[in-house]
Amino acid sequence: MNRRPLILVSNDDGYRARGVHHLTRLLQEFGDVVAVCPEGPQSGKSMAITVYEPLRITPVDDYREDEPDVEWYHVNGTPTDCVKIAMHTVLRDRRPDLVCTGINHGSNASVNVLYSGTMGAAFEGCVFGIPSIGFSLCDHSPEADFLPMLPYVRRIVEDVMEKGLPEGVCLNVNAPKCSDLAGIRHTVACKGHWSDEYAEYTDPHGRPYYWMTGRFINEEPDNPDTDDALLARGFVTIVPCQIDRTSK
Amino acid sequence: MNRRPLILVSNDDGYRARGVHHLTRLLQEFGDVVAVCPEGPQSGKSMAITVYEPLRITPVDDYREDEPDVEWYHVNGTPTDCVKIAMHTVLRDRRPDLVCTGINHGSNASVNVLYSGTMGAAFEGCVFGIPSIGFSLCDHSPEADFLPMLPYVRRIVEDVMEKGLPEGVCLNVNAPKCSDLAGIRHTVACKGHWSDEYAEYTDPHGRPYYWMTGRFINEEPDNPDTDDALLARGFVTIVPCQIDRTSK
Repeated sequence: MNRRPLILVSNDDGYRARGVHHLTRLLQEFGDVVAVCPEGPQSGKSMAITVYEPLRITPVDDYREDEPDVEWYHVNGTPTDCVKIAMHTVLRDRRPDLVCTGINHGSNASVNVLYSGTMGAAFEGCVFGIPSIGFSLCDHSPEADFLPMLPYVRRIVEDVMEKGLPEGVCLNVNAPKCSDLAGIRHTVACKGHWSDEYAEYTDPHGRPYYWMTGRFINEEPDNPDTDDALLARGFVTIVPCQIDRTSK
Repeated sequence: MNRRPLILVSNDDGYRARGVHHLTRLLQEFGDVVAVCPEGPQSGKSMAITVYEPLRITPVDDYREDEPDVEWYHVNGTPTDCVKIAMHTVLRDRRPDLVCTGINHGSNASVNVLYSGTMGAAFEGCVFGIPSIGFSLCDHSPEADFLPMLPYVRRIVEDVMEKGLPEGVCLNVNAPKCSDLAGIRHTVACKGHWSDEYAEYTDPHGRPYYWMTGRFINEEPDNPDTDDALLARGFVTIVPCQIDRTSK
């Protein structure tokens, strides 16, 4: 029997975010889509899992008209929880052919890959042995314009559906905020870190508190071939990422 | 001026956990210790950071008698938050010579390294370019017996203080639950995954909910040289872990 491919989608901006609906609408061309996303924003959750609270997975009916081939659910947990509980419940006997996460509102290039919930969900797909891709647009705005990158998303999905990915490797795809994209480059994560990471405030009782903020420091600014450098030149970047943390 | 080394400690079981106090008491031998831990349990937080809530860092006076050379703080965030906010606030102009995390109540071998908050904090130390070590005991009990592994902790700390670590690499150290340890082995993370990850319940309104549980599946059971296999044979395992996720 020639069944349609099955694609699992998640993200970290929550099921209402614009980015993920661009992704689900596009992926309907390729197969049946099951989208299981956090019920609210879960940025910066890395591969966190929920250990101390029970999880619920809830069907969402709001998107049937535009997304007839998408089953929608939200979960009261992290992006990695979404992938795990989707595999355990709504997918159970249906193994996805592909996991796609995003499209993230904001860059997951360089060191951001470590903290990203969107990439956390892609890594989790990879732990399950399923070809997995995380997509991000370097624009944090809820109103970000995802249209320029969609042809590239389509091309990358086609390519992975056809050729698969090496075992233990998933893709971190980023697109610059730019209407005139320069093409695709396979590259590596730029060495970098965040500096001045907190804004400091004082509450009415005189006690300090801290909000995360910061600026990104590129530690190899003269290297033109990192994801950070290529994004600055208008390229869509693909970084192959491994789940094995062992340094060999 | 010959100053004492400065060591930053964090964990994911919270500042009251026994494991971290075994670590801080031992590390006083080596230098001045600043311990900045979550105010409650934060297991499974990976490298999650707190983006949507403000953080507070609060001095703790409870441990002065036994730990005279330890400055104690707790933070309302994740283990990675603890390292970041420690660097930003109480350490600001004092750069630690070493970051040690744990001692975790429970294994962080194999695929657990991906989800571990204790290893998340060690990876964050590594992002800051500081030699960093995460320690774990394969015993989840709050009453776990950490004494057998302490001589090994001491030996590994001495070794890293003397020789440092390669750039971008930190150590994931695990000890089996065993009073008669067989020695130390440098090794690699076992390929594996978790199966049957949720226990299913129904609430009084007839709606299902799910608690994380599961059993570990070793995907290379015939390989005697993985961390999982060596722990089963009574060895303390050291896996060098890299922060760079790029597959090369």
